[in-house]
Amino acid sequence: MIPIDDSPLTRDGKVLILAYDHGLEHGPVDFEDVPESADPAHVFDVATHDAVTSLAVQKGVAEAYYPSYEDDVDLLAKLNGTSNLWRGEPNSAVNWTVDYAHEIGADSIGFTVYGGSNHEIEMVEEFREAQERAHQEYDMPVVMWSYPRGQGLRNAKTPESIAYSARLGLELGADVAKVKYPGSQDAMEETVRMAGKTKVVMSGGSKRSDEEFLSNVKSVIDAGGAGLAVGRNVFQRENPERILDALEKVIFEESSVEEALAAAEGAAPEAE
Amino acid sequence: MIPIDDSPLTRDGKVLILAYDHGLEHGPVDFEDVPESADPAHVFDVATHDAVTSLAVQKGVAEAYYPSYEDDVDLLAKLNGTSNLWRGEPNSAVNWTVDYAHEIGADSIGFTVYGGSNHEIEMVEEFREAQERAHQEYDMPVVMWSYPRGQGLRNAKTPESIAYSARLGLELGADVAKVKYPGSQDAMEETVRMAGKTKVVMSGGSKRSDEEFLSNVKSVIDAGGAGLAVGRNVFQRENPERILDALEKVIFEESSVEEALAAAEGAAPEAE
Amino acid sequence: MIPIDDSPLTRDGKVLILAYDHGLEHGPVDFEDVPESADPAHVFDVATHDAVTSLAVQKGVAEAYYPSYEDDVDLLAKLNGTSNLWRGEPNSAVNWTVDYAHEIGADSIGFTVYGGSNHEIEMVEEFREAQERAHQEYDMPVVMWSYPRGQGLRNAKTPESIAYSARLGLELGADVAKVKYPGSQDAMEETVRMAGKTKVVMSGGSKRSDEEFLSNVKSVIDAGGAGLAVGRNVFQRENPERILDALEKVIFEESSVEEALAAAEGAAPEAE
Amino acid sequence: MIPIDDSPLTRDGKVLILAYDHGLEHGPVDFEDVPESADPAHVFDVATHDAVTSLAVQKGVAEAYYPSYEDDVDLLAKLNGTSNLWRGEPNSAVNWTVDYAHEIGADSIGFTVYGGSNHEIEMVEEFREAQERAHQEYDMPVVMWSYPRGQGLRNAKTPESIAYSARLGLELGADVAKVKYPGSQDAMEETVRMAGKTKVVMSGGSKRSDEEFLSNVKSVIDAGGAGLAVGRNVFQRENPERILDALEKVIFEESSVEEALAAAEGAAPEAE
Amino acid sequence: MIPIDDSPLTRDGKVLILAYDHGLEHGPVDFEDVPESADPAHVFDVATHDAVTSLAVQKGVAEAYYPSYEDDVDLLAKLNGTSNLWRGEPNSAVNWTVDYAHEIGADSIGFTVYGGSNHEIEMVEEFREAQERAHQEYDMPVVMWSYPRGQGLRNAKTPESIAYSARLGLELGADVAKVKYPGSQDAMEETVRMAGKTKVVMSGGSKRSDEEFLSNVKSVIDAGGAGLAVGRNVFQRENPERILDALEKVIFEESSVEEALAAAEGAAPEAE
Repeated sequence: MIPIDDSPLTRDGKVLILAYDHGLEHGPVDFEDVPESADPAHVFDVATHDAVTSLAVQKGVAEAYYPSYEDDVDLLAKLNGTSNLWRGEPNSAVNWTVDYAHEIGADSIGFTVYGGSNHEIEMVEEFREAQERAHQEYDMPVVMWSYPRGQGLRNAKTPESIAYSARLGLELGADVAKVKYPGSQDAMEETVRMAGKTKVVMSGGSKRSDEEFLSNVKSVIDAGGAGLAVGRNVFQRENPERILDALEKVIFEESSVEEALAAAEGAAPEAE
Repeated sequence: MIPIDDSPLTRDGKVLILAYDHGLEHGPVDFEDVPESADPAHVFDVATHDAVTSLAVQKGVAEAYYPSYEDDVDLLAKLNGTSNLWRGEPNSAVNWTVDYAHEIGADSIGFTVYGGSNHEIEMVEEFREAQERAHQEYDMPVVMWSYPRGQGLRNAKTPESIAYSARLGLELGADVAKVKYPGSQDAMEETVRMAGKTKVVMSGGSKRSDEEFLSNVKSVIDAGGAGLAVGRNVFQRENPERILDALEKVIFEESSVEEALAAAEGAAPEAE
Repeated sequence: MIPIDDSPLTRDGKVLILAYDHGLEHGPVDFEDVPESADPAHVFDVATHDAVTSLAVQKGVAEAYYPSYEDDVDLLAKLNGTSNLWRGEPNSAVNWTVDYAHEIGADSIGFTVYGGSNHEIEMVEEFREAQERAHQEYDMPVVMWSYPRGQGLRNAKTPESIAYSARLGLELGADVAKVKYPGSQDAMEETVRMAGKTKVVMSGGSKRSDEEFLSNVKSVIDAGGAGLAVGRNVFQRENPERILDALEKVIFEESSVEEALAAAEGAAPEAE
Repeated sequence: MIPIDDSPLTRDGKVLILAYDHGLEHGPVDFEDVPESADPAHVFDVATHDAVTSLAVQKGVAEAYYPSYEDDVDLLAKLNGTSNLWRGEPNSAVNWTVDYAHEIGADSIGFTVYGGSNHEIEMVEEFREAQERAHQEYDMPVVMWSYPRGQGLRNAKTPESIAYSARLGLELGADVAKVKYPGSQDAMEETVRMAGKTKVVMSGGSKRSDEEFLSNVKSVIDAGGAGLAVGRNVFQRENPERILDALEKVIFEESSVEEALAAAEGAAPEAE
Repeated sequence: MIPIDDSPLTRDGKVLILAYDHGLEHGPVDFEDVPESADPAHVFDVATHDAVTSLAVQKGVAEAYYPSYEDDVDLLAKLNGTSNLWRGEPNSAVNWTVDYAHEIGADSIGFTVYGGSNHEIEMVEEFREAQERAHQEYDMPVVMWSYPRGQGLRNAKTPESIAYSARLGLELGADVAKVKYPGSQDAMEETVRMAGKTKVVMSGGSKRSDEEFLSNVKSVIDAGGAGLAVGRNVFQRENPERILDALEKVIFEESSVEEALAAAEGAAPEAE
């Protein structure tokens, strides 16, 4: 962990990462409902929204599209990831070195660790290499996508294992740990407590209704969490700006879900 | 992805790669119908045709024959590949480093990735190393042979998996993705759309009739694809010049298949 | 082995390491009984006690909390470790390089070796790399967590295998070997004898009553051992200062268990 | 491939490698019939014969014996090889680096590749490393021992697979490919044709009668092959000079088998 | 192989290595009969005997005890080795780098190779790395512990496989090969013959009577062997000086077993 409150990854200590590596992780199927979401330029445009602190993409997308947005978007280099064409024990290829991410202009890095996988040790050692390079050489913040997952794992989605995954972020040196929502605000508080000085953000997950989604986010903030890393719940919406308006209220302005929704309606009534 | 429209790999933004690594991948059997095709010098001669933007070969062939053709042929160094004497889960040996490819005079590099293979992670990491070296050190374009293939893969030849393979090219940083023909122009459009700024070329595949082959190529161009990477459909023909004349019409001059065939007949009637 | 009697790892040739990597190795469950023990700052405070010669933590905890304690706590960088989300043959990821540990300010390093595991060879070679770097480059003492454990092992907890594990510390170049208590003072003497010039410390293990725990420690000292590496038997107590007062008596002042307990009661009667 | 016609590996474009790595590959059993053949000094003496263009040995033999012969013998450093004490899927340890081979005085290097083995990819990548180092740094010719062999291989000894193995030499960058005799001069012609500019030499194999052996060699030369790499058919003979006299006739002087045998008899009648 | 007759590893071309890595390889059990043998200082004292040309120990023992003996003992750094807590296919961890061994003051290095193990290739490649570093950088002699052993091996203890193991020493570049006694002087002669210029020493093995043991050693010398590498047959004796006196006679003074025993009795009658 390094001090990150002055880094572009945060705004007033809070975090809203727009994650867009679904083309690698899930493939075209994630772009079906909103076809324009397949176009990285569209998502880079969305990421210029004030609510977004960083956009997380894989190397190829960054190389091709980031040069046009470097003044308007903070780049989070997602270093590893794997297609779901492959269906083995959870693992992730390292697709991008820290050095090259820095050269492309990344402000921070992201790395997936599947605690409990038979590849946990390998992934954690790859994480070490990236984390040390990022901290030692470039003072770049490190976000761990920390998901318990694997053959030998019992109860990957319990509050206990999610709290454990946040603790892994702290122990292994992540500045931010991205974890699943553990089911309740109380459980999220415990998760945040286990992470110590490491900030905790909720993984957006699959698309839900505005209200359900914002309520989850609100309970993360109320539990002391730092915010959100979200993909589908933004880009699979017809009007991503509207949900970002609402998220901005909830995450950065301490609004209630109702206030946030009302403000978003008022701000962009014409959009749908 | 790096800008490649001014690189020798393209001509007016279009691509026609003559691929000649069959001696490694398939062995002598691919040269049976046209025995002279076993001779690299013969194929280098063919590659001097204006329609050909690059010739893709393995290291040994480049070392031995390219010095005589360096003014007339653009060299695409195919870095990995494997014999079919070995019959395991799809994988490919890295036979050539980027540094040595550059020293031999290569203008661009090619790399196979079998998405869905149990070796996907290893291959993707080898790709990363080659891609970053090529882009960072030498500004060399990178072509990904992107073929879903492997034990755990369902539906490797569906339009969906082919579109996914093109997306892998974009996400992982290929400048050009070489994919199988997905069966229709509509499916090719979707594949091209998923690849974003990464150019898509069709893999020539096994030998077909002139008309059938050119129709496939035409539908790639009409779908917004960049062109073709072709081996057997050129060198397994008695008169490779004739099909290259036709391909030049279809790919670079927006001709119909009929026009292209007619022009090729006119240009080289004596050849068969 | 290098001379360590003048290093901060020892005091009068004795050792009391406070180990706090349970958040990685066991997860939040180890913090349940004393919730504040989940907070590294709490344990760093405890480690300022005079009895503690070093505090052993993982990299992330050191990065985040050690800067506030560098004048008051000697840092032992625990380089490897693994979550128990993963349940395979005993192994441990290397989470921290020696170079970075030195940069963070570590005074010594710690490394787990599971003798008898199917990963023994891999772990021992990773230990070699860390040990040589620590000794050659930085003159940092090396503590081996030496635990026989694994599928092919018979009798991992016998006095014989514990004596063997201490000998591994000597043979492989540890300055201190942390081993399980072998069940009796006689067995501990044999263990200490096998370790030669390598100091032997007892692993604290799971929480026991004050008297039982101190008696074990006393028999280690009487057997010629150098002391203790303890976690749960300190931080899982409501009043860690009190047990540290008693340990200081037993380890550094040659007190009996009764004297130590009495002195600790006197010193801190108000604490409970 | 690099130009090798001016290198000591060839004489008038032809090649006769005396191979002497049987002590590693087969063990003492290969020296039983002619006990003095166990002594490397004896074989180095044999290798001073004008017919021999290079002597191929492992590192240890070169270190110990080559210094006495460096003016009279051209050294081919056989870089990999394995004992037959081990009986797994075909593979070969890399026993010698190119840098050290060059330092010892080697003029060229040799490397075994078992196409079709489950270790093919690993071997080919080790070959790459050696080949590029030899060509880039030292301009040393590279000889590939190219033998299809392995669990998943069908028909390792067919003319087709032998022609394929010669092609592997060309594709992967060998200057000379050492292959098994494919059974006929026609098949050898096809093998030579597949190798393009890469020279093809026949592997001597197990001991045969003078006439049978020389007839094989003659048909290699007549098929356009470059010559022979031979071990047992020389050193397992009581009079190795005599067969070398004959081989010199067949390989370098275009003699018939009968002429060669007659000349050898005349030249060395006293030898048996 | 490098010239070693002027190195401290030999005396008049003969070798007597005192091997003391049993604490790693076998554990405390080997020290049971003579408890003081567990103390490295005791064995270092023994190694000051004139008969001992080198003492072979693991890194940790060298670091801790060699500094007090560097004027009186020649250090042979045993680089690899493994505990017998682990019971898998024969393999050995590399516990010490050549560079660090040289820094500690080692005069030569030792390395185990299990020919025939499924790990043979890995071990041989690790041997290569150590051997080349030792010879190229430091002119240090290399001793191979050459033991055929493994799942796929037939007849690991036959004279044939022992002769083969000596040959491996020569082929792979060992200056001295340490092999099992092949059962007779004739078989030892054949073993020595197969090793060429590589010196052969007998592995002492488990403890035997003075006469039986010395007779084996005598037959090694008479067979042309260079001597002995011995551990238990020295340090498991109450009076190690006495057997060393006798060994000195047999190895360096060409005495008969009877003369050697008589002289040793005379020299040290008071010792038992």
